[in-house]
Amino acid sequence: MRENTDMTAADHAPHPTAAGVRAPGHGGRAGSPGRPGGPGGPVAPSRGPLRPLGLTEVTLTGGLWADLQHTNATATLDHCERWMERVGWLANFDRVAEGTTGPERPGWSFSDSEVYKLLEALSWEHGRTGDPRHEAAIRRLTARIARAQDPDGYLNTCFGHPGRPPRYSDLEFGHELYCTGHLLQAAVARVRTAGEGAAGEDELVTVARRAADHVCAVFGPDGPLPGICGHPGIEAGLAELGRALDEPRYLAQARLFLDRRGHRTLKDIPLGRAYFQDDIPVRHAEVWRGHAVRALYLSAAAVDVAVEHEDKELLTAIERQWSRTVARRTHLTGGMGSRHQDEGFGEDWELPADRAYCETCAGVASVMVSWRLFLATGQVRYADLIERTCYNVIAASPRSDGRAFFYANPLQQRAPGEPTDDGAVSPRAEGGTRAAWFDVSCCPTNVARTLAAWHTHLAAAGERELTLLQYAPARITTELGDGRPLALSVETGYPHRGLVTVRVEQAPPGPVALRLRVPSWARGAELEEGGRRRPAAPGWAVLDRELAAGEEIRLRLPVTPRFTWPDARIDALRGCVAVERGPLVYCAESAALPGGAVLEDLAVDPGTAPVDGDGGTVGVRALLTARTGPEAEWPYRTGPGGGDGGDGGRTASAEVALTPYYRWAENGPTAMRVWLPVAPPR
Amino acid sequence: MRENTDMTAADHAPHPTAAGVRAPGHGGRAGSPGRPGGPGGPVAPSRGPLRPLGLTEVTLTGGLWADLQHTNATATLDHCERWMERVGWLANFDRVAEGTTGPERPGWSFSDSEVYKLLEALSWEHGRTGDPRHEAAIRRLTARIARAQDPDGYLNTCFGHPGRPPRYSDLEFGHELYCTGHLLQAAVARVRTAGEGAAGEDELVTVARRAADHVCAVFGPDGPLPGICGHPGIEAGLAELGRALDEPRYLAQARLFLDRRGHRTLKDIPLGRAYFQDDIPVRHAEVWRGHAVRALYLSAAAVDVAVEHEDKELLTAIERQWSRTVARRTHLTGGMGSRHQDEGFGEDWELPADRAYCETCAGVASVMVSWRLFLATGQVRYADLIERTCYNVIAASPRSDGRAFFYANPLQQRAPGEPTDDGAVSPRAEGGTRAAWFDVSCCPTNVARTLAAWHTHLAAAGERELTLLQYAPARITTELGDGRPLALSVETGYPHRGLVTVRVEQAPPGPVALRLRVPSWARGAELEEGGRRRPAAPGWAVLDRELAAGEEIRLRLPVTPRFTWPDARIDALRGCVAVERGPLVYCAESAALPGGAVLEDLAVDPGTAPVDGDGGTVGVRALLTARTGPEAEWPYRTGPGGGDGGDGGRTASAEVALTPYYRWAENGPTAMRVWLPVAPPR
Repeated sequence: MRENTDMTAADHAPHPTAAGVRAPGHGGRAGSPGRPGGPGGPVAPSRGPLRPLGLTEVTLTGGLWADLQHTNATATLDHCERWMERVGWLANFDRVAEGTTGPERPGWSFSDSEVYKLLEALSWEHGRTGDPRHEAAIRRLTARIARAQDPDGYLNTCFGHPGRPPRYSDLEFGHELYCTGHLLQAAVARVRTAGEGAAGEDELVTVARRAADHVCAVFGPDGPLPGICGHPGIEAGLAELGRALDEPRYLAQARLFLDRRGHRTLKDIPLGRAYFQDDIPVRHAEVWRGHAVRALYLSAAAVDVAVEHEDKELLTAIERQWSRTVARRTHLTGGMGSRHQDEGFGEDWELPADRAYCETCAGVASVMVSWRLFLATGQVRYADLIERTCYNVIAASPRSDGRAFFYANPLQQRAPGEPTDDGAVSPRAEGGTRAAWFDVSCCPTNVARTLAAWHTHLAAAGERELTLLQYAPARITTELGDGRPLALSVETGYPHRGLVTVRVEQAPPGPVALRLRVPSWARGAELEEGGRRRPAAPGWAVLDRELAAGEEIRLRLPVTPRFTWPDARIDALRGCVAVERGPLVYCAESAALPGGAVLEDLAVDPGTAPVDGDGGTVGVRALLTARTGPEAEWPYRTGPGGGDGGDGGRTASAEVALTPYYRWAENGPTAMRVWLPVAPPR
Repeated sequence: MRENTDMTAADHAPHPTAAGVRAPGHGGRAGSPGRPGGPGGPVAPSRGPLRPLGLTEVTLTGGLWADLQHTNATATLDHCERWMERVGWLANFDRVAEGTTGPERPGWSFSDSEVYKLLEALSWEHGRTGDPRHEAAIRRLTARIARAQDPDGYLNTCFGHPGRPPRYSDLEFGHELYCTGHLLQAAVARVRTAGEGAAGEDELVTVARRAADHVCAVFGPDGPLPGICGHPGIEAGLAELGRALDEPRYLAQARLFLDRRGHRTLKDIPLGRAYFQDDIPVRHAEVWRGHAVRALYLSAAAVDVAVEHEDKELLTAIERQWSRTVARRTHLTGGMGSRHQDEGFGEDWELPADRAYCETCAGVASVMVSWRLFLATGQVRYADLIERTCYNVIAASPRSDGRAFFYANPLQQRAPGEPTDDGAVSPRAEGGTRAAWFDVSCCPTNVARTLAAWHTHLAAAGERELTLLQYAPARITTELGDGRPLALSVETGYPHRGLVTVRVEQAPPGPVALRLRVPSWARGAELEEGGRRRPAAPGWAVLDRELAAGEEIRLRLPVTPRFTWPDARIDALRGCVAVERGPLVYCAESAALPGGAVLEDLAVDPGTAPVDGDGGTVGVRALLTARTGPEAEWPYRTGPGGGDGGDGGRTASAEVALTPYYRWAENGPTAMRVWLPVAPPR
């Protein structure tokens, strides 16, 4: 109990204005009206087997994710605001307010959404730490946005103003409803984190409520426009704002948008209507297809709607699409999207390492879907994919200083990228080096809002159970569904070390089910309690008994480096292996090769197991071919070796140090590959 | 002599109005001023070791290419005109003439070029057969085009008219000069094929001359606009029209455009300036990059300019780019372009079968470059690539009836494409089924113009030699550089059979060097003359002696099916083999598999050689895996076989019939693959 008291007073404690405000009757401020716990995080279903812990029920106390959160709070948020000021995306709101819009307007049609995503990130961050600088930023940005809102609630800087195209004149690519969706999500963060006591409703919440009412009026069952937006996003925004404000109209509108999609009402485009998932109704689809972020945002909303409306068919449809996509259309990193052309999934087994798109935003969106599916079903596989995606997509995006980002996350870089200029907007979303800002800069703010609330994915509470999903040094203070308090601390060097120590800080009276996730890769894990060890198979390691304050439970996860083989149907990866260690995918970088060796001529011997190396690296035994003789004129030849072309050479064996994928290109441009060719047997 | 006389009177003989008109002093009508031979074909350098034979010096008498030409003449040309009328691309010219242009305009900015490419095809076709229907079409189309030309020679239906953007206001993507380039190429075809005797200059030639003069005035050394076009094309048009009309100003303007490119004067775009080759000056580049058709059109013009200006450095630069690109960025089919995103090359070794773009137009453009390089250097490798590309890219595009086309030519189709509607415009350039017309319909007219003059690529004449490059049933009546006449006939079942019989129909006095190409794949070829056989290594099989009328020379090319292996650095093809037979690449189609087998579970045993099958197929011994058990949840596993996922199954051995790639999907949608996984050793 003493430690628990200390904890709430510690540096990492939530700010008083953000702490544990409960739902006052009308449910306006609670994460989940009628459910116990503090204000919710990004997702707060009103029902389902598991309640996500709120922003202030979990505190990270160290490790990788605490570092990422800290960098996000102290560098990225400010970085994003400054860039959006510089490129004019913020001034777009001023121009609407001042009536000075015209044919020229900086930014893509969706640039408003970046401001809203930043507001969402700031709101979670303020809720987490109470830093008044973030509160000031929220108020500063909200004031400019509010001035741009039309009297009827419409709010968009690209359409509907002098010199601009009319409202909703380009549903396929105008992104108006998509932008509104992010506005609503920002307001959700504000609802769940803003302190009580301010006079009246928070301005951001008011703006969002008016925007949502406008959408319902125009696109509702009796509205003049029975359409949908080419980019999903409004659905999830409406669903969550409906929960946060206890406003069933919003949920109903989200469901209406979902039901309308898939009936080919959007125009056909060269990429096909699958691009925006208007080819097949969401409840009939078998697999995710088209633009990855669009498909995943849509599915996240579908789970929200399915849960709130107890629509089992819809929930099953998203589970089915998840299964098929994870089995056949997902990269080893958890990254989704194999095509640059449409930022899209591609077909089954189309999983090229070099052209893997794996947009950072698709990683964010995948976690959004899996997290909702986990809360709705309690199945461990969703938590497994969240872990994989967080470590190998989301964590890969920001540079260590939080001021440059990967947009695409390929699993192979053939030639080192060009160094980027931190002072310039990168026109390209790819290239092998992190960039300070992009022409399409969706990823920095998406990473920011995810990191600010990342710790809410650590655990979930059931009626009489607590489930630990992700492992990081943390303190957890919560209530079970039956109202009993429970406090735990977690100490671990994970993901680099496999020991996770869970200490009971405050034990409730009576038995508790404590469930610890054993990741699917963790063969040979052990659970230690009361000095006794027992095997813990992948899935859940469960204790169901009375807990004692001060007792420690230890989970030992085997983070020995291992080789991983691809399914034979993945053409692009045939004859290759990857190296993983715990939840981390590793990669070879040209910068780490012995002098003179080139990455394209590296092969590994899978007969020699990978071993732990220095500084978080993993060593593999590799063959490096030094090419001799002239280049072949034609790269295809009669005969498997030599023959017409003759590209043989001398090979040397060496131990090569592999880097965790999420830190690749950390030291500058480099060639890189996750999948390593297997050396032919000698 | 008798047969030669018969030939000129036969059905395939050129039309009297198109036949052998020589350069009258000013060089206006000759293919190559000052060089012997009939009117030229598409390319007629004024110097260089080899003179291409003219349109009327070679006649196809049967076989695959005669069939393709016939279908082109009787179906495709009319098909293209009807579609361009239907979609409004022809009426665009009427609207300019009538002053009724406005903001709405059907077609992309480059749609004018399709009309010009059709005119070029019609001109070659009319020159080849003299069919008055084609002459009528030329006059009909030309009249509409001429009315749309401005008094100063400017001619474009997208820019520079009421309601349209100003002239040259979008050099990056406006395609104005590109369109003009195709107009000039159409005029070249007209110059080289229109009969003498009409009153004054042909209208199409007059229109083109005025357009070219306008370009020189605006973009010339003293012109107001020192820019370049985002899509090369004007350069080759100017160079060839300069040759055809003996107008050095046009050649100088072509050179100026070439020299201007690569200095980053076009705006940067998300795809980068390499997209339109404005990143590096053409004479400094090491490899083709960016948009494949753009890179290749530019290089074709560069060879023209290099030859005419005897610019050895420039010629060497294009040879170097060809070498590097063929060695590292070219698909087995000869197809170029690995990326859908930008219809571009991609990087070295980026050669995925499934996402190979291999645009039909890039195949056409590749032949344009290789043909020019061959004429400039006489090197056999250029003729080898022409053959490969013609059989496996260009011939693959048109459906047998000449009324539907492939735009992209991938080497793998995972799932059968959707059947296309012959009455509808396909919005997509991909999909595994040939489409009647595309939103971007560049390929049908490009195939049409190539097929109409395809036979000009069969042979080339030197001072005292004749070189046979491609093998097809044909009659050749020509003059050597020293003025001596020579007539040959070729009989062959090539490419399906390997015997090529060359019969001397008319022998000149004195010795002649007769060179027959032995393709690079033809190990074990033999040349038979006077009853004696001798080995003929890949390269040139040469006779240098007096020829006798009536004698027959036989080349025996080994068209035994063979396995072909990829370079180890092509990641996407690791662990696979392809099957070739003669110049033809083969493929497996799902439609040809034994019942129940799926293409993704096929593997071949390279220890058993492929064998000739029925109807032009090739049989391979294959293992077909019937999957058992549930689908793995995650397609990556610990251990090379079985393990976590377990996607093993029962395998059965079967002989599978492979189809020539150029006829794939002939019988409807099918999955397909050129590269076949190698079965693991048992």
